[in-house]
Amino acid sequence: MDNTKIPKPTIKRLAVYHRCLENMVISGVASVSSNDLAERLGIKASQVRKDLSYFGEFGKRGVGYSTKHLLDSISEILGIRKKWKTCIVGMGNLGMALANYPGLENSGFISKALFDNNPNKIGIPMPNDLVIESTEVLEEIVKKRQIEIGVITVPANAAQIIADLLADAGVKGIVNFAPIRLTLPPGISNEEIDISVSFRSLAFNMTFGSSRKGRRA
Amino acid sequence: MDNTKIPKPTIKRLAVYHRCLENMVISGVASVSSNDLAERLGIKASQVRKDLSYFGEFGKRGVGYSTKHLLDSISEILGIRKKWKTCIVGMGNLGMALANYPGLENSGFISKALFDNNPNKIGIPMPNDLVIESTEVLEEIVKKRQIEIGVITVPANAAQIIADLLADAGVKGIVNFAPIRLTLPPGISNEEIDISVSFRSLAFNMTFGSSRKGRRA
Repeated sequence: MDNTKIPKPTIKRLAVYHRCLENMVISGVASVSSNDLAERLGIKASQVRKDLSYFGEFGKRGVGYSTKHLLDSISEILGIRKKWKTCIVGMGNLGMALANYPGLENSGFISKALFDNNPNKIGIPMPNDLVIESTEVLEEIVKKRQIEIGVITVPANAAQIIADLLADAGVKGIVNFAPIRLTLPPGISNEEIDISVSFRSLAFNMTFGSSRKGRRA
Repeated sequence: MDNTKIPKPTIKRLAVYHRCLENMVISGVASVSSNDLAERLGIKASQVRKDLSYFGEFGKRGVGYSTKHLLDSISEILGIRKKWKTCIVGMGNLGMALANYPGLENSGFISKALFDNNPNKIGIPMPNDLVIESTEVLEEIVKKRQIEIGVITVPANAAQIIADLLADAGVKGIVNFAPIRLTLPPGISNEEIDISVSFRSLAFNMTFGSSRKGRRA
Protein backbone atom coordinates (compact mmCIF):
# COMPACT_ATOMS: atom_id res chain seq x y z
CA MET A 1 0.00 0.00 0.00
CA ASP A 2 1.32 3.41 -0.92
CA ASN A 3 0.35 5.20 2.26
CA THR A 4 1.95 8.50 1.26
CA LYS A 5 -1.10 9.16 -0.90
CA ILE A 6 -3.71 8.76 1.84
CA PRO A 7 -5.06 12.19 2.80
CA LYS A 8 -5.43 13.01 6.49
CA PRO A 9 -9.24 13.45 6.31
CA THR A 10 -9.49 9.90 4.92
CA ILE A 11 -7.44 8.57 7.84
CA LYS A 12 -9.77 10.35 10.27
CA ARG A 13 -12.84 8.94 8.52
CA LEU A 14 -11.38 5.42 8.55
CA ALA A 15 -11.12 5.74 12.34
CA VAL A 16 -14.76 6.81 12.44
CA TYR A 17 -15.82 3.92 10.16
CA HIS A 18 -13.93 1.59 12.49
CA ARG A 19 -15.88 2.78 15.51
CA CYS A 20 -19.20 2.44 13.68
CA LEU A 21 -18.36 -1.05 12.34
CA GLU A 22 -17.38 -2.19 15.84
CA ASN A 23 -20.84 -1.21 17.07
CA MET A 24 -22.46 -2.96 14.10
CA VAL A 25 -20.52 -6.19 14.76
CA ILE A 26 -21.54 -6.03 18.44
CA SER A 27 -25.16 -5.53 17.35
CA GLY A 28 -24.95 -8.57 15.05
CA VAL A 29 -25.15 -6.73 11.72
CA ALA A 30 -23.55 -9.18 9.27
CA SER A 31 -23.23 -7.07 6.14
CA VAL A 32 -23.01 -3.40 5.35
CA SER A 33 -23.10 -1.30 2.18
CA SER A 34 -21.30 1.99 1.66
CA ASN A 35 -24.78 3.55 1.67
CA ASP A 36 -25.51 2.08 5.14
CA LEU A 37 -22.24 3.36 6.52
CA ALA A 38 -22.76 6.77 4.92
CA GLU A 39 -26.29 7.03 6.32
CA ARG A 40 -25.24 6.06 9.85
CA LEU A 41 -22.43 8.60 9.87
CA GLY A 42 -23.94 11.47 7.88
CA ILE A 43 -21.25 11.20 5.19
CA LYS A 44 -21.85 10.92 1.44
CA ALA A 45 -21.85 7.32 0.15
CA SER A 46 -19.56 8.39 -2.69
CA GLN A 47 -17.07 9.61 -0.06
CA VAL A 48 -17.21 6.29 1.81
CA ARG A 49 -16.56 4.38 -1.41
CA LYS A 50 -13.70 6.69 -2.32
CA ASP A 51 -12.09 6.34 1.13
CA LEU A 52 -12.27 2.55 1.03
CA SER A 53 -10.90 2.48 -2.52
CA TYR A 54 -7.47 3.60 -1.27
CA PHE A 55 -7.03 0.10 0.08
CA GLY A 56 -8.39 -1.92 -2.80
CA GLU A 57 -11.82 -3.45 -2.98
CA PHE A 58 -13.31 -4.79 0.25
CA GLY A 59 -16.66 -5.69 -1.24
CA LYS A 60 -18.79 -5.54 -4.33
CA ARG A 61 -21.11 -2.71 -5.27
CA GLY A 62 -24.75 -3.56 -4.76
CA VAL A 63 -23.80 -6.58 -2.64
CA GLY A 64 -22.15 -4.87 0.31
CA TYR A 65 -19.29 -5.79 2.58
CA SER A 66 -19.00 -8.39 5.33
CA THR A 67 -19.10 -6.14 8.42
CA LYS A 68 -16.55 -8.28 10.26
CA HIS A 69 -14.19 -8.49 7.30
CA LEU A 70 -14.35 -4.75 6.67
CA LEU A 71 -13.71 -4.08 10.39
CA ASP A 72 -10.70 -6.42 10.36
CA SER A 73 -9.28 -4.80 7.24
CA ILE A 74 -9.63 -1.28 8.62
CA SER A 75 -8.20 -2.42 11.98
CA GLU A 76 -5.14 -3.67 10.19
CA ILE A 77 -4.83 -0.48 8.14
CA LEU A 78 -5.11 1.71 11.23
CA GLY A 79 -2.65 -0.36 13.22
CA ILE A 80 -5.33 -0.97 15.83
CA ARG A 81 -4.52 -4.60 16.53
CA LYS A 82 -1.26 -3.51 18.03
CA LYS A 83 -1.27 -2.51 21.72
CA TRP A 84 0.31 0.90 22.26
CA LYS A 85 1.99 1.87 25.51
CA THR A 86 1.02 5.38 26.57
CA CYS A 87 1.67 7.81 29.38
CA ILE A 88 -0.40 10.81 30.44
CA VAL A 89 1.38 13.95 31.62
CA GLY A 90 -0.72 16.37 33.70
CA MET A 91 -3.18 14.76 36.11
CA GLY A 92 -5.70 17.58 36.33
CA ASN A 93 -9.34 16.88 35.56
CA LEU A 94 -8.68 16.05 31.91
CA GLY A 95 -5.75 13.74 32.68
CA MET A 96 -7.87 12.01 35.33
CA ALA A 97 -10.73 11.66 32.85
CA LEU A 98 -8.44 10.03 30.28
CA ALA A 99 -6.82 7.71 32.84
CA ASN A 100 -10.30 6.51 33.82
CA TYR A 101 -11.70 6.29 30.26
CA PRO A 102 -12.11 2.62 29.26
CA GLY A 103 -12.50 3.54 25.56
CA LEU A 104 -8.78 4.11 25.18
CA GLU A 105 -7.75 0.76 26.59
CA ASN A 106 -10.46 -0.93 24.52
CA SER A 107 -8.90 0.69 21.43
CA GLY A 108 -5.46 -0.70 22.32
CA PHE A 109 -3.97 2.34 24.08
CA ILE A 110 -2.70 1.12 27.45
CA SER A 111 -1.61 3.61 30.12
CA LYS A 112 1.74 2.57 31.57
CA ALA A 113 2.51 5.76 33.50
CA LEU A 114 0.77 8.89 34.79
CA PHE A 115 2.79 12.00 35.64
CA ASP A 116 2.25 15.26 37.51
CA ASN A 117 4.54 17.87 39.04
CA ASN A 118 2.32 18.52 42.08
CA PRO A 119 3.88 16.77 45.10
CA ASN A 120 0.40 16.34 46.65
CA LYS A 121 -0.69 14.18 43.71
CA ILE A 122 2.37 11.95 43.51
CA GLY A 123 1.64 8.52 44.91
CA ILE A 124 -2.14 8.68 44.42
CA PRO A 125 -3.32 5.21 43.35
CA MET A 126 -4.97 5.00 39.92
CA PRO A 127 -6.61 2.24 37.79
CA ASN A 128 -4.49 -0.61 36.38
CA ASP A 129 -2.13 -0.70 39.37
CA LEU A 130 -0.63 2.66 38.48
CA VAL A 131 0.22 5.52 40.81
CA ILE A 132 0.82 9.14 39.83
CA GLU A 133 4.58 9.70 39.46
CA SER A 134 6.73 12.82 39.34
CA THR A 135 7.55 14.46 35.99
CA GLU A 136 11.12 14.59 37.35
CA VAL A 137 11.44 10.87 36.61
CA LEU A 138 9.53 11.00 33.31
CA GLU A 139 12.47 10.36 31.02
CA GLU A 140 13.74 7.42 33.05
CA ILE A 141 10.29 5.78 33.32
CA VAL A 142 9.32 6.32 29.68
CA LYS A 143 12.56 4.62 28.61
CA LYS A 144 12.30 1.77 31.12
CA ARG A 145 8.64 0.97 30.30
CA GLN A 146 9.20 1.47 26.57
CA ILE A 147 6.33 3.95 26.31
CA GLU A 148 5.56 4.90 22.70
CA ILE A 149 2.90 7.60 23.02
CA GLY A 150 2.81 10.62 25.32
CA VAL A 151 -0.48 12.36 26.08
CA ILE A 152 -0.11 16.00 27.10
CA THR A 153 -2.81 17.40 29.41
CA VAL A 154 -0.80 20.14 31.11
CA PRO A 155 -1.56 23.89 30.79
CA ALA A 156 -0.50 25.57 27.54
CA ASN A 157 2.55 27.28 29.06
CA ALA A 158 4.07 23.92 30.10
CA ALA A 159 3.16 21.88 27.02
CA GLN A 160 6.29 22.51 24.92
CA ILE A 161 8.58 21.68 27.87
CA ILE A 162 6.74 18.39 28.37
CA ALA A 163 6.81 17.67 24.63
CA ASP A 164 10.60 18.15 24.64
CA LEU A 165 10.93 15.83 27.65
CA LEU A 166 8.80 13.18 25.92
CA ALA A 167 10.75 13.51 22.67
CA ASP A 168 14.06 13.16 24.53
CA ALA A 169 12.71 10.10 26.31
CA GLY A 170 12.02 8.48 22.93
CA VAL A 171 8.24 8.50 22.40
CA LYS A 172 7.18 8.19 18.75
CA GLY A 173 3.80 9.90 19.03
CA ILE A 174 2.19 12.72 20.99
CA VAL A 175 -1.46 13.52 21.59
CA ASN A 176 -1.66 17.16 22.63
CA PHE A 177 -4.71 18.57 24.43
CA ALA A 178 -3.00 21.86 25.34
CA PRO A 179 -4.14 24.74 23.13
CA ILE A 180 -0.77 25.46 21.53
CA ARG A 181 0.98 24.14 18.46
CA LEU A 182 4.02 22.07 19.45
CA THR A 183 7.38 22.09 17.74
CA LEU A 184 8.58 18.50 17.49
CA PRO A 185 11.64 16.81 16.03
CA PRO A 186 11.17 14.87 12.77
CA GLY A 187 9.89 11.34 13.17
CA ILE A 188 7.40 12.08 15.95
CA SER A 189 3.73 11.91 14.97
CA ASN A 190 1.42 14.46 16.54
CA GLU A 191 -2.32 14.80 17.02
CA GLU A 192 -3.75 17.99 18.44
CA ILE A 193 -7.16 17.79 20.08
CA ASP A 194 -8.97 21.10 20.46
CA ILE A 195 -12.38 20.58 22.00
CA SER A 196 -13.53 24.12 21.22
CA VAL A 197 -13.30 23.30 17.49
CA SER A 198 -16.21 20.88 17.87
CA PHE A 199 -18.23 23.47 19.77
CA ARG A 200 -17.63 25.98 16.98
CA SER A 201 -18.71 23.50 14.36
CA LEU A 202 -21.91 22.91 16.35
CA ALA A 203 -22.47 26.68 16.61
CA PHE A 204 -22.17 26.92 12.84
CA ASN A 205 -24.78 24.20 12.34
CA MET A 206 -27.11 25.88 14.84
CA THR A 207 -26.69 29.23 13.11
CA PHE A 208 -27.04 28.11 9.50
CA GLY A 209 -28.92 24.85 9.56
CA SER A 210 -31.47 23.09 11.69
CA SER A 211 -29.49 19.82 12.04
CA ARG A 212 -27.10 17.76 9.96
CA LYS A 213 -29.83 15.61 8.56
CA GLY A 214 -32.03 18.60 7.90
CA ARG A 215 -29.27 20.46 6.14
CA ARG A 216 -28.53 17.53 3.89
CA ALA A 217 -32.09 16.64 2.93
CA MET B 1 -24.97 32.43 1.34
CA ASP B 2 -26.29 29.04 0.33
CA ASN B 3 -25.13 27.15 3.37
CA THR B 4 -26.73 23.85 2.35
CA LYS B 5 -23.78 23.28 0.02
CA ILE B 6 -21.04 23.61 2.64
CA PRO B 7 -19.60 20.17 3.39
CA LYS B 8 -19.05 19.22 7.04
CA PRO B 9 -15.25 18.81 6.64
CA THR B 10 -15.09 22.42 5.38
CA ILE B 11 -16.99 23.62 8.46
CA LYS B 12 -14.54 21.75 10.69
CA ARG B 13 -11.58 23.26 8.86
CA LEU B 14 -13.05 26.78 9.10
CA ALA B 15 -13.11 26.30 12.88
CA VAL B 16 -9.45 25.26 12.72
CA TYR B 17 -8.56 28.25 10.52
CA HIS B 18 -10.32 30.46 13.05
CA ARG B 19 -8.20 29.17 15.90
CA CYS B 20 -4.99 29.64 13.92
CA LEU B 21 -5.95 33.17 12.80
CA GLU B 22 -6.75 34.15 16.39
CA ASN B 23 -3.21 33.16 17.38
CA MET B 24 -1.77 35.07 14.42
CA VAL B 25 -3.70 38.24 15.31
CA ILE B 26 -2.48 37.94 18.92
CA SER B 27 1.09 37.53 17.62
CA GLY B 28 0.73 40.66 15.49
CA VAL B 29 0.77 38.97 12.06
CA ALA B 30 -0.99 41.50 9.80
CA SER B 31 -1.46 39.53 6.60
CA VAL B 32 -1.69 35.89 5.66
CA SER B 33 -1.74 33.93 2.40
CA SER B 34 -3.53 30.64 1.84
CA ASN B 35 -0.04 29.12 1.60
CA ASP B 36 0.85 30.45 5.08
CA LEU B 37 -2.32 29.08 6.58
CA ALA B 38 -1.86 25.75 4.82
CA GLU B 39 1.73 25.46 6.00
CA ARG B 40 0.87 26.27 9.63
CA LEU B 41 -1.90 23.68 9.68
CA GLY B 42 -0.46 20.95 7.50
CA ILE B 43 -3.32 21.27 4.97
CA LYS B 44 -2.91 21.72 1.21
CA ALA B 45 -3.03 25.36 0.08
CA SER B 46 -5.47 24.40 -2.67
CA GLN B 47 -7.79 23.02 0.05
CA VAL B 48 -7.59 26.26 2.04
CA ARG B 49 -8.42 28.31 -1.07
CA LYS B 50 -11.31 25.99 -1.91
CA ASP B 51 -12.73 26.17 1.64
CA LEU B 52 -12.59 29.96 1.68
CA SER B 53 -14.14 30.16 -1.78
CA TYR B 54 -17.49 28.95 -0.42
CA PHE B 55 -17.90 32.38 1.11
CA GLY B 56 -16.71 34.54 -1.75
CA GLU B 57 -13.32 36.15 -2.05
CA PHE B 58 -11.68 37.36 1.16
CA GLY B 59 -8.42 38.36 -0.46
CA LYS B 60 -6.44 38.36 -3.66
CA ARG B 61 -4.13 35.61 -4.84
CA GLY B 62 -0.48 36.49 -4.49
CA VAL B 63 -1.35 39.40 -2.19
CA GLY B 64 -2.83 37.55 0.78
CA TYR B 65 -5.59 38.35 3.22
CA SER B 66 -5.74 40.83 6.07
CA THR B 67 -5.45 38.45 9.05
CA LYS B 68 -7.92 40.46 11.12
CA HIS B 69 -10.45 40.77 8.29
CA LEU B 70 -10.28 37.06 7.49
CA LEU B 71 -10.71 36.23 11.20
CA ASP B 72 -13.73 38.52 11.44
CA SER B 73 -15.30 37.02 8.33
CA ILE B 74 -14.84 33.46 9.55
CA SER B 75 -16.11 34.45 13.02
CA GLU B 76 -19.28 35.74 11.42
CA ILE B 77 -19.66 32.63 9.26
CA LEU B 78 -19.20 30.31 12.24
CA GLY B 79 -21.57 32.28 14.44
CA ILE B 80 -18.75 32.79 16.93
CA ARG B 81 -19.53 36.39 17.80
CA LYS B 82 -22.71 35.21 19.45
CA LYS B 83 -22.48 34.07 23.08
CA TRP B 84 -24.00 30.62 23.54
CA LYS B 85 -25.51 29.51 26.85
CA THR B 86 -24.47 25.97 27.71
CA CYS B 87 -24.97 23.43 30.44
CA ILE B 88 -22.83 20.39 31.27
CA VAL B 89 -24.53 17.19 32.42
CA GLY B 90 -22.33 14.71 34.29
CA MET B 91 -19.74 16.23 36.62
CA GLY B 92 -17.21 13.42 36.59
CA ASN B 93 -13.60 14.16 35.64
CA LEU B 94 -14.47 15.12 32.07
CA GLY B 95 -17.37 17.39 33.09
CA MET B 96 -15.11 19.03 35.69
CA ALA B 97 -12.37 19.49 33.09
CA LEU B 98 -14.81 21.21 30.71
CA ALA B 99 -16.29 23.40 33.44
CA ASN B 100 -12.77 24.59 34.28
CA TYR B 101 -11.57 24.98 30.66
CA PRO B 102 -11.22 28.69 29.79
CA GLY B 103 -11.02 27.91 26.04
CA LEU B 104 -14.77 27.34 25.85
CA GLU B 105 -15.73 30.64 27.44
CA ASN B 106 -13.13 32.40 25.30
CA SER B 107 -14.86 30.91 22.25
CA GLY B 108 -18.24 32.24 23.37
CA PHE B 109 -19.62 29.13 25.08
CA ILE B 110 -20.71 30.20 28.55
CA SER B 111 -21.66 27.60 31.18
CA LYS B 112 -24.93 28.58 32.83
CA ALA B 113 -25.58 25.31 34.68
CA LEU B 114 -23.76 22.12 35.76
CA PHE B 115 -25.74 18.98 36.58
CA ASP B 116 -25.09 15.66 38.28
CA ASN B 117 -27.28 12.98 39.83
CA ASN B 118 -24.89 12.23 42.70
CA PRO B 119 -26.30 13.84 45.91
CA ASN B 120 -22.74 14.23 47.26
CA LYS B 121 -21.81 16.50 44.36
CA ILE B 122 -24.89 18.71 44.43
CA GLY B 123 -24.09 22.12 45.91
CA ILE B 124 -20.34 21.98 45.20
CA PRO B 125 -19.22 25.50 44.21
CA MET B 126 -17.76 25.85 40.72
CA PRO B 127 -16.26 28.68 38.61
CA ASN B 128 -18.47 31.58 37.42
CA ASP B 129 -20.66 31.56 40.53
CA LEU B 130 -22.19 28.22 39.61
CA VAL B 131 -22.91 25.26 41.87
CA ILE B 132 -23.56 21.69 40.77
CA GLU B 133 -27.32 21.12 40.58
CA SER B 134 -29.47 18.01 40.44
CA THR B 135 -30.46 16.49 37.08
CA GLU B 136 -33.95 16.30 38.64
CA VAL B 137 -34.33 20.05 38.06
CA LEU B 138 -32.57 20.04 34.66
CA GLU B 139 -35.65 20.75 32.56
CA GLU B 140 -36.81 23.61 34.77
CA ILE B 141 -33.37 25.25 34.92
CA VAL B 142 -32.59 24.88 31.22
CA LYS B 143 -35.88 26.59 30.39
CA LYS B 144 -35.50 29.34 33.01
CA ARG B 145 -31.90 30.19 32.02
CA GLN B 146 -32.65 29.83 28.30
CA ILE B 147 -29.80 27.38 27.80
CA GLU B 148 -29.22 26.58 24.12
CA ILE B 149 -26.53 23.88 24.17
CA GLY B 150 -26.32 20.77 26.35
CA VAL B 151 -22.98 19.02 26.85
CA ILE B 152 -23.29 15.33 27.74
CA THR B 153 -20.46 13.87 29.84
CA VAL B 154 -22.39 11.04 31.54
CA PRO B 155 -21.62 7.32 31.02
CA ALA B 156 -22.85 5.76 27.75
CA ASN B 157 -25.81 3.99 29.37
CA ALA B 158 -27.27 7.28 30.63
CA ALA B 159 -26.54 9.45 27.60
CA GLN B 160 -29.77 8.89 25.65
CA ILE B 161 -31.90 9.59 28.74
CA ILE B 162 -30.05 12.87 29.28
CA ALA B 163 -30.33 13.74 25.58
CA ASP B 164 -34.11 13.23 25.78
CA LEU B 165 -34.29 15.43 28.88
CA LEU B 166 -32.26 18.16 27.17
CA ALA B 167 -34.37 17.96 24.02
CA ASP B 168 -37.59 18.21 26.06
CA ALA B 169 -36.13 21.21 27.87
CA GLY B 170 -35.64 22.96 24.55
CA VAL B 171 -31.90 22.99 23.80
CA LYS B 172 -31.04 23.44 20.13
CA GLY B 173 -27.65 21.76 20.14
CA ILE B 174 -25.93 18.85 21.89
CA VAL B 175 -22.24 18.05 22.27
CA ASN B 176 -21.98 14.38 23.16
CA PHE B 177 -18.84 12.91 24.72
CA ALA B 178 -20.49 9.57 25.58
CA PRO B 179 -19.45 6.79 23.19
CA ILE B 180 -22.91 6.13 21.76
CA ARG B 181 -24.82 7.56 18.82
CA LEU B 182 -27.81 9.57 20.07
CA THR B 183 -31.26 9.61 18.54
CA LEU B 184 -32.48 13.19 18.53
CA PRO B 185 -35.61 14.93 17.30
CA PRO B 186 -35.30 17.00 14.09
CA GLY B 187 -34.02 20.51 14.56
CA ILE B 188 -31.39 19.67 17.18
CA SER B 189 -27.78 19.90 16.01
CA ASN B 190 -25.40 17.31 17.35
CA GLU B 191 -21.62 16.97 17.62
CA GLU B 192 -20.12 13.72 18.83
CA ILE B 193 -16.63 13.87 20.28
CA ASP B 194 -14.81 10.56 20.40
CA ILE B 195 -11.32 11.02 21.77
CA SER B 196 -10.24 7.51 20.77
CA VAL B 197 -10.67 8.49 17.09
CA SER B 198 -7.73 10.89 17.41
CA PHE B 199 -5.62 8.22 19.09
CA ARG B 200 -6.38 5.83 16.23
CA SER B 201 -5.44 8.42 13.67
CA LEU B 202 -2.13 8.91 15.50
CA ALA B 203 -1.57 5.14 15.57
CA PHE B 204 -2.08 5.06 11.83
CA ASN B 205 0.51 7.78 11.28
CA MET B 206 2.95 6.00 13.59
CA THR B 207 2.43 2.73 11.74
CA PHE B 208 2.57 3.99 8.19
CA GLY B 209 4.44 7.26 8.24
CA SER B 210 7.15 8.91 10.23
CA SER B 211 5.27 12.18 10.84
CA ARG B 212 2.75 14.35 9.03
CA LYS B 213 5.39 16.57 7.53
CA GLY B 214 7.52 13.60 6.54
CA ARG B 215 4.61 11.87 4.90
CA ARG B 216 3.67 14.94 2.93
CA ALA B 217 7.12 15.88 1.74
